[in-house]
Amino acid sequence: MKLVRYLYNNEESYGVLTKQTVLCLPLLANLSKINFPQEFSDFIAAADSLNKTGKLLNTAPLSYFKAASIPLGDVSLLAPIRFPPKIIGLGWNYLDHATEVKIKVPKEPVIFIKPRTTIIGPRQKIVKPPFVKELDYEGELAVVIGKTAKNVSVNEAEQYIFGYTILNDVSARDFQFKDGQWTKGKSFDTFAPTGPCIVTHDEIPDVNNIRIRTWVNGELRQNGITKDMVFNVNQIIYHLSRFMTLEPCDIIATGTPSGVGMAMQPQRWLKDGDVVRIEIEGIGVLENTVEGN
Amino acid sequence: MKLVRYLYNNEESYGVLTKQTVLCLPLLANLSKINFPQEFSDFIAAADSLNKTGKLLNTAPLSYFKAASIPLGDVSLLAPIRFPPKIIGLGWNYLDHATEVKIKVPKEPVIFIKPRTTIIGPRQKIVKPPFVKELDYEGELAVVIGKTAKNVSVNEAEQYIFGYTILNDVSARDFQFKDGQWTKGKSFDTFAPTGPCIVTHDEIPDVNNIRIRTWVNGELRQNGITKDMVFNVNQIIYHLSRFMTLEPCDIIATGTPSGVGMAMQPQRWLKDGDVVRIEIEGIGVLENTVEGN
Repeated sequence: MKLVRYLYNNEESYGVLTKQTVLCLPLLANLSKINFPQEFSDFIAAADSLNKTGKLLNTAPLSYFKAASIPLGDVSLLAPIRFPPKIIGLGWNYLDHATEVKIKVPKEPVIFIKPRTTIIGPRQKIVKPPFVKELDYEGELAVVIGKTAKNVSVNEAEQYIFGYTILNDVSARDFQFKDGQWTKGKSFDTFAPTGPCIVTHDEIPDVNNIRIRTWVNGELRQNGITKDMVFNVNQIIYHLSRFMTLEPCDIIATGTPSGVGMAMQPQRWLKDGDVVRIEIEGIGVLENTVEGN
Repeated sequence: MKLVRYLYNNEESYGVLTKQTVLCLPLLANLSKINFPQEFSDFIAAADSLNKTGKLLNTAPLSYFKAASIPLGDVSLLAPIRFPPKIIGLGWNYLDHATEVKIKVPKEPVIFIKPRTTIIGPRQKIVKPPFVKELDYEGELAVVIGKTAKNVSVNEAEQYIFGYTILNDVSARDFQFKDGQWTKGKSFDTFAPTGPCIVTHDEIPDVNNIRIRTWVNGELRQNGITKDMVFNVNQIIYHLSRFMTLEPCDIIATGTPSGVGMAMQPQRWLKDGDVVRIEIEGIGVLENTVEGN
């Protein structure tokens, strides 16, 4: 199931994405006299949401489906999670990317945290301040946590995953590498485009073998596959949950494959008007334009 | 005014701290037929809270004060902000600390972010996992943001400050320095003790000239003064708000003076049962015990 948060007639809601429509879940539930949370983040955090949704979809009459369906063209998709409690990013988590930047593969995940003010949704603008000179993209598979997780084993990890989305770990390389700490260069407002949807974890048969591609203005720049990750999704959750409690709606950006602008010869930076398009197999396409000189 | 969040009879509330009592603000307001937010974080975020509180304190009859007062011994103080949207930390922000670790003073703040799951309150336990070998304290003045701030000048910065608290930027040095990124070593659960109160910004005449001291088991380890900060509070807000939007209830930990365990000869690490006590002039005392082998 693909779930989206969206604006329709200036009201925010969430629902199921199909090719042509969005099915408003709170409305469909309401018509069926069932109570669904108003907020998508509360839906994610509630333990029984997916079961309840399955039942609802199986039992609601066609007339309710019709009443709760909106043509996709009439909605604006929003970042699936507006206020993630944490956005945790991984560095050097693809073999080919570690090689292109001449870094030894780490023994445990190298992490940083992006503040929630970096979040934007599909088609929203990545804002480049004039004092940023080296703006770069990083197409990444992002894990959305569904249940509180602490000290979780690799084998148990999957049950804590709600689903997957795409995250562009936008980075100002001039700030990222200025003082040794990556945080600043990755923490500018608008530097975490996410979306277009969250695919529930049951819908991706093997998350460790899906393709991830990034284009800039139509030119293919990244063409990676998640099986090249140094730490796979379950291993990441194990490592993180050893020291921090993962919470529902936390987002983990699992690192980027090779092909970032920083590693090109000569280096190529994003500029005003550039369109960054990231596609991940089974999830969809996330597209954002850069704004600012 | 000193404001606290607390538990009393298993219910959470917030109020004004005096030497002997806590004055429950939502209750005092309620008795006076005024509406105050239930949550302390909403109180901080509401633009007129301090004005409304001033009026309330000036007009409520003595009988209401009596009804809304609780003996300090009957409450458990909590971390003033349970879920800060961001906890931003600064590195090398005291001249003497930069010197003790032989680092050149930075040209702009070096930052990292701690997740909200690090937050604990006064007297709660700092949990040391068995695999952490180099546990250290950092006594710090913390700024609590009161209003959304972006691109704020140094001169305007003060109006965005709600108040100040104490933060212990607990750090696992073995993880902090393992891979170059400080984030992991500073992101363990319980690694951000905060409190005991938030002092409103008007109550500290000169925040850039107050003493900050840390004791471990009664032994004075840090004895610094905020005028030694490389970037003072207003300059920090200017720098941060150039690239990220600061939000109400964000906490900025402004860096630590000299005297951390890592810089001692020989190095001394925190262990099970150690009591870390931080006192900042005009704010109070934050004390936490380490638990775990």
